[in-house]
Amino acid sequence: MELPEAIRQRFLERLTRLCALPSVAATGSAQAETAAEVARQLESLGLQVELHRTAGAPVVFAERRVAGKPTVLFYNHYDVQPPEPLELWDSDPFTLTERDGHLYARGAADDKGDLVARMAALEWLAERNGGELPVGVVFVVEGEEEVGSPNIDAYVAAMQERLQADACVWEFGGVGASGHPELTCGLKGIVSLDLKLRTANADQHSGRGPVIQNAVWKLAAAVASLRDMDGNSLVEGFMDDVLPLSPLQEQLLAEAPSEDAELAAATGVAGFLGGVSGAEFQRRLQATPVINVNGLHGGYGGDGTKTVLPATAAAKLDIRLVPGQKPERVVGLIRAHLDRHGFADVEISQAELPGLPSRVDPGDPWLRHCAAALEEAYGKAAVIKVSSGGSGPMHAFADVLGLPVAMLGISHADSRAHAPNENIRWQDVHRGSFALVRAIENWAAQG
Amino acid sequence: MELPEAIRQRFLERLTRLCALPSVAATGSAQAETAAEVARQLESLGLQVELHRTAGAPVVFAERRVAGKPTVLFYNHYDVQPPEPLELWDSDPFTLTERDGHLYARGAADDKGDLVARMAALEWLAERNGGELPVGVVFVVEGEEEVGSPNIDAYVAAMQERLQADACVWEFGGVGASGHPELTCGLKGIVSLDLKLRTANADQHSGRGPVIQNAVWKLAAAVASLRDMDGNSLVEGFMDDVLPLSPLQEQLLAEAPSEDAELAAATGVAGFLGGVSGAEFQRRLQATPVINVNGLHGGYGGDGTKTVLPATAAAKLDIRLVPGQKPERVVGLIRAHLDRHGFADVEISQAELPGLPSRVDPGDPWLRHCAAALEEAYGKAAVIKVSSGGSGPMHAFADVLGLPVAMLGISHADSRAHAPNENIRWQDVHRGSFALVRAIENWAAQG
Repeated sequence: MELPEAIRQRFLERLTRLCALPSVAATGSAQAETAAEVARQLESLGLQVELHRTAGAPVVFAERRVAGKPTVLFYNHYDVQPPEPLELWDSDPFTLTERDGHLYARGAADDKGDLVARMAALEWLAERNGGELPVGVVFVVEGEEEVGSPNIDAYVAAMQERLQADACVWEFGGVGASGHPELTCGLKGIVSLDLKLRTANADQHSGRGPVIQNAVWKLAAAVASLRDMDGNSLVEGFMDDVLPLSPLQEQLLAEAPSEDAELAAATGVAGFLGGVSGAEFQRRLQATPVINVNGLHGGYGGDGTKTVLPATAAAKLDIRLVPGQKPERVVGLIRAHLDRHGFADVEISQAELPGLPSRVDPGDPWLRHCAAALEEAYGKAAVIKVSSGGSGPMHAFADVLGLPVAMLGISHADSRAHAPNENIRWQDVHRGSFALVRAIENWAAQG
Repeated sequence: MELPEAIRQRFLERLTRLCALPSVAATGSAQAETAAEVARQLESLGLQVELHRTAGAPVVFAERRVAGKPTVLFYNHYDVQPPEPLELWDSDPFTLTERDGHLYARGAADDKGDLVARMAALEWLAERNGGELPVGVVFVVEGEEEVGSPNIDAYVAAMQERLQADACVWEFGGVGASGHPELTCGLKGIVSLDLKLRTANADQHSGRGPVIQNAVWKLAAAVASLRDMDGNSLVEGFMDDVLPLSPLQEQLLAEAPSEDAELAAATGVAGFLGGVSGAEFQRRLQATPVINVNGLHGGYGGDGTKTVLPATAAAKLDIRLVPGQKPERVVGLIRAHLDRHGFADVEISQAELPGLPSRVDPGDPWLRHCAAALEEAYGKAAVIKVSSGGSGPMHAFADVLGLPVAMLGISHADSRAHAPNENIRWQDVHRGSFALVRAIENWAAQG
């Protein structure tokens, strides 16, 4: 189950070329060049490629339909996270570098590596099937995933007809901390809020503290009021719309391998919120909404002391939603909670477009074929995750296009996406590509 | 009641020279030059002057004892706050500038103006008393008041013999928002704390929010737990040691002119903590301890969004104490409160040496003479304040040296100490100096 040598060579060449382009979404650098390179690579597979404008970065659209066969849609992205801090990289972040069976570069894992592995799998699939693909394929490769995919919902809505397909391969996946390959079936939604408070027209001397409200204290109290010590939401009604899990989803949580010891060791925490472990740990991570504070700033933060009573403070929240929860309703509940608890003067604004939560049925045939193929490729049962703890524009594909979305890929637990020394392992390139080949072969044969 | 012209001229010359020296305590600039200039000016009054080393800025010590007469000790400081933000000044902060009866410069009010007004009052006093002072005088002029007077307690303790006196004139005072001159009889103590929290070995992706504690949320909750919405301390035992006010102090609070409307207008607040006004407003400001948050910082604070789960956060508190409360006990109560409420992992350290609270009896003869002299000078009754809401090293003088300390001076409600366009008014220079002259004359005659 190794990639044929010629395909392996092309994988390396393609990834080397893509990783050399610093397509950092946060700065918009190398956007056009990277989209053009992706287009060339997809054309070399024999796909019809179009570059589609959006309000932001262009989308590379590619297709090759096969008459009478179902179609697989691949969602990937050509943008990457910033490489900083540069001094923590052992080799140049924009030069793909091989060491000890690993390939290092920004984007090697997230998501240029997966994109190029999809190409390798399609070449392998054709080679194994007499030069023809047993399915039609469509690629949607966007350039703004790392900044929240602000334009993909509108793109998918506008392109709904041309994006018709029967199954979807999501941009990421890989081997988890347990050593088993993972197949993920959902993403949480996300609402990003800016909170601001002003309590006086200017900062005051703190001698006035007994009579004038302190903006930092009050915003801290407002933020504190949103959750309890175990991280459970205290916003009235927040959990009301959460849909129950299906029996299969419950079973998957119960069967999930314990990952809490690994995460505790990796993060240095003494314990987890609510004291959870095992299945309850997985339930929180995969299926529980949470209100996160991304930052809170106000008043003096320099060396020494300053006897100031701050008049302003600001905080940023992200709220991770699960199916059933609607962003606008959640924002309304938080507004009502703040009003009810004396924080009517805390201003809320949405910092970016919300993302809807989405999940697919792990029992869908496409997902079952993916799980079986992962087990065949890795020699270990796939861990099927009800949902990732992260977010992304899955809703457009799973719910608008109605596709069963499978998340599988070539990362491993120490791939360091978003961090210095981002990397993939050759062994996962081989196995992950093989799993995709086998999933498509079996699904096409039986679907 | 105007300063004689020659004395007024010397007041202006002395203040011009002192304000030209940028003796910003925070940076230590112009320390030696300013101390030397103060020394020269005090020598020109016929005092014996010594420059005393401390662990920090030198203290200018000056004395002229008069046999058989009581001694008045003047506590002042030659350091100033930083002038920033410079663009908000209408004239150079280090060039004393006269406009419309006001004198503008950094230090014009706090505290170079008061120091030079003390000198003018002594010259006037001698002129009115046949060329002789009716009292002995001692000056202690330190250079670190604006950074919390870290060395003055040790200085006073070491110099106790040579600082023997019978009454003390504190560094500040003036006309309040009500238009009445104020006489203040106390300062609050202060404890400055740094709070730090780390919840993981590095910032995490906020997708892990349901299982990993958020340092910013937890520190916000810890800080929020210290007080209620009305600013009352929730730290168990915090109020236990607060000494009751005397009947005279209670009477002074009850008689205090309403200043809450003025403060609300000046600060733009809709109301005060606890909804107080009148005497209860004054009680909070003058006689109630408070836990202030000077700043809280953690996580992302830039533009847009970052889906980060912060692993660290930091906050700064100052706690204003009233007589009876001891800094080390208050720190212990806060530690116990945090431990009891689940915040044992929040680290506390003292950011600087604590300051003890102190008050003197408003019924002391020296204070009564000061109040009467203020009424004589201004034609309006003095407002006698049980305490300022601010802090300072009064304890060393009131409790270690045992002096009745009177706080009166030449500022007005819009003097903008610590802010751009700091200023004094000529009318207050005349009246404030006259009040001091009359207080000393009457006290010396009857004391």
